[in-house]
Amino acid sequence: MYSVINRVRPAHRALAFALRFNANTEGSSCVVTDGRRLSPGVSADVDPLRATSRRFCSRTALTQGLLFRQMFELESSTYTYLLADTQTKEAVIIDPVLETIDRDLKFIQQLGLKLKVAVNTHCHADHITSTGLMKKRLVGLKSAISKCSGASADIHLSEGDKITFGKQYLTVRETPGHTDGCVTLVLGDQSMAFTGDALLIRGCGRTDFQQGCAKTLYQSIHQKIFTLPDECLIYPAHDYLGRTVSTVGEERKFNPRLTKSLEEFVGIMNNLNLPKPKKIDISVPANLVCGVQDI
Amino acid sequence: MYSVINRVRPAHRALAFALRFNANTEGSSCVVTDGRRLSPGVSADVDPLRATSRRFCSRTALTQGLLFRQMFELESSTYTYLLADTQTKEAVIIDPVLETIDRDLKFIQQLGLKLKVAVNTHCHADHITSTGLMKKRLVGLKSAISKCSGASADIHLSEGDKITFGKQYLTVRETPGHTDGCVTLVLGDQSMAFTGDALLIRGCGRTDFQQGCAKTLYQSIHQKIFTLPDECLIYPAHDYLGRTVSTVGEERKFNPRLTKSLEEFVGIMNNLNLPKPKKIDISVPANLVCGVQDI
Repeated sequence: MYSVINRVRPAHRALAFALRFNANTEGSSCVVTDGRRLSPGVSADVDPLRATSRRFCSRTALTQGLLFRQMFELESSTYTYLLADTQTKEAVIIDPVLETIDRDLKFIQQLGLKLKVAVNTHCHADHITSTGLMKKRLVGLKSAISKCSGASADIHLSEGDKITFGKQYLTVRETPGHTDGCVTLVLGDQSMAFTGDALLIRGCGRTDFQQGCAKTLYQSIHQKIFTLPDECLIYPAHDYLGRTVSTVGEERKFNPRLTKSLEEFVGIMNNLNLPKPKKIDISVPANLVCGVQDI
Repeated sequence: MYSVINRVRPAHRALAFALRFNANTEGSSCVVTDGRRLSPGVSADVDPLRATSRRFCSRTALTQGLLFRQMFELESSTYTYLLADTQTKEAVIIDPVLETIDRDLKFIQQLGLKLKVAVNTHCHADHITSTGLMKKRLVGLKSAISKCSGASADIHLSEGDKITFGKQYLTVRETPGHTDGCVTLVLGDQSMAFTGDALLIRGCGRTDFQQGCAKTLYQSIHQKIFTLPDECLIYPAHDYLGRTVSTVGEERKFNPRLTKSLEEFVGIMNNLNLPKPKKIDISVPANLVCGVQDI
């Protein structure tokens, strides 16, 4: 396990807990992460297109040797991501879905990848993860999910943990609010962030079940995601309109919810009146055990 | 029109016609394109993963200043692509769908793009294009489709034509077989190819209607697409399993149809027994006039 995951910034874990349990800081510049001073709700006037342009070069220079695939599960509109080091062929899969396990394993087999970790960004309510079944079919594969999710897994993730695959790695940022155990996984060079259901393209995850809290989500996004470089690509766990990617700069400028004040955001989130997810009663219990009863 | 499109390689047009009307060359090394000698049906033993790795760097170095977005239309499983030069903000959209015009125009507006050309890779049978309606909503926008499609448009494309946007450009390769008028659009540095319904991920377009011809399609793919660099990313017009991208190297190695001999391929294609596309009777007539009656 420790060849895969390294705890590098324990101070961040304390910060994450401070965020979750000390949520009265909205509106003031109060939290310092990665040496940046943040002003929740205040968005700099960036040009997301130029930001993307500049970063497009440095990102790809820095991520030399990364194989990246985005895949889509049609019923739950879930994105699964496959990342691999092209030299060692060690790979990580993010948010794999039970219904598409054969497709995903076929890609892994054809490309000759060694899948080390299957990680969920949180305990999903709308689909069942394939991590448990994938472990049965790939020797040595480890499942991972955040410690705060309360779910079983081989690896329990906390703020600042690294998931390494070859020369590449993902760093864990705890971004609770949709659920208590949501994390965002950030590629080593901060060129890509896998935001799960915290930040979606021009939207965000709902906050009306599974320990959801609009205030916590707002602070997570502003303090843990919007502090990434403007040109960082945002890859969410879902999109319902066929969009595949955004950037931090774009979301800081155009996200119709997150550009609002905390109070307005909480008002929006508390009045969405969304129907209960169809599969929640089977998905959540299943996902607490990697989608299977015996991992 | 001529600021957008330039005819640069008229010799290629003659080649395209030769390919279409002189289809008895299968099995022999007979056609030279871009200075390469081709052996249809023969696939070099490439490592698609390493190929992708190497190209990942050079591609992005060469395509510095390119904004790229892939978008999905859920009903017809169609991919729409938006490409822009980040300096001039001139943009091209490929295969936009009527149902998602508002989403696409919102992206274009938010990113401050100047959409110059809306191009269809062919006259689609499964959905209606938004190019005609888009022209009504964006001043100066030109529609484009291949001359061989028989469809109306501002720009009629032929082999070797360039569609320029800022410092970027797409080159037209005629790839008939699914329809007579199918083209593949190749980014200037050959790092990306938009293959329409000619080559799909681990598949290809059907050949049983709209002038379809399995033999012609096989030759188009082998002579016009598989001659691109192995690391060239393949972006098709559709995928029905949630896959978003492939590479020339992968398809040369793993495409279950195109790795067969011509005879086997024709046998497969002639026995698919697929149902008629639901929207063909309204889509094709509409797409012959850019999706609207009065362009």
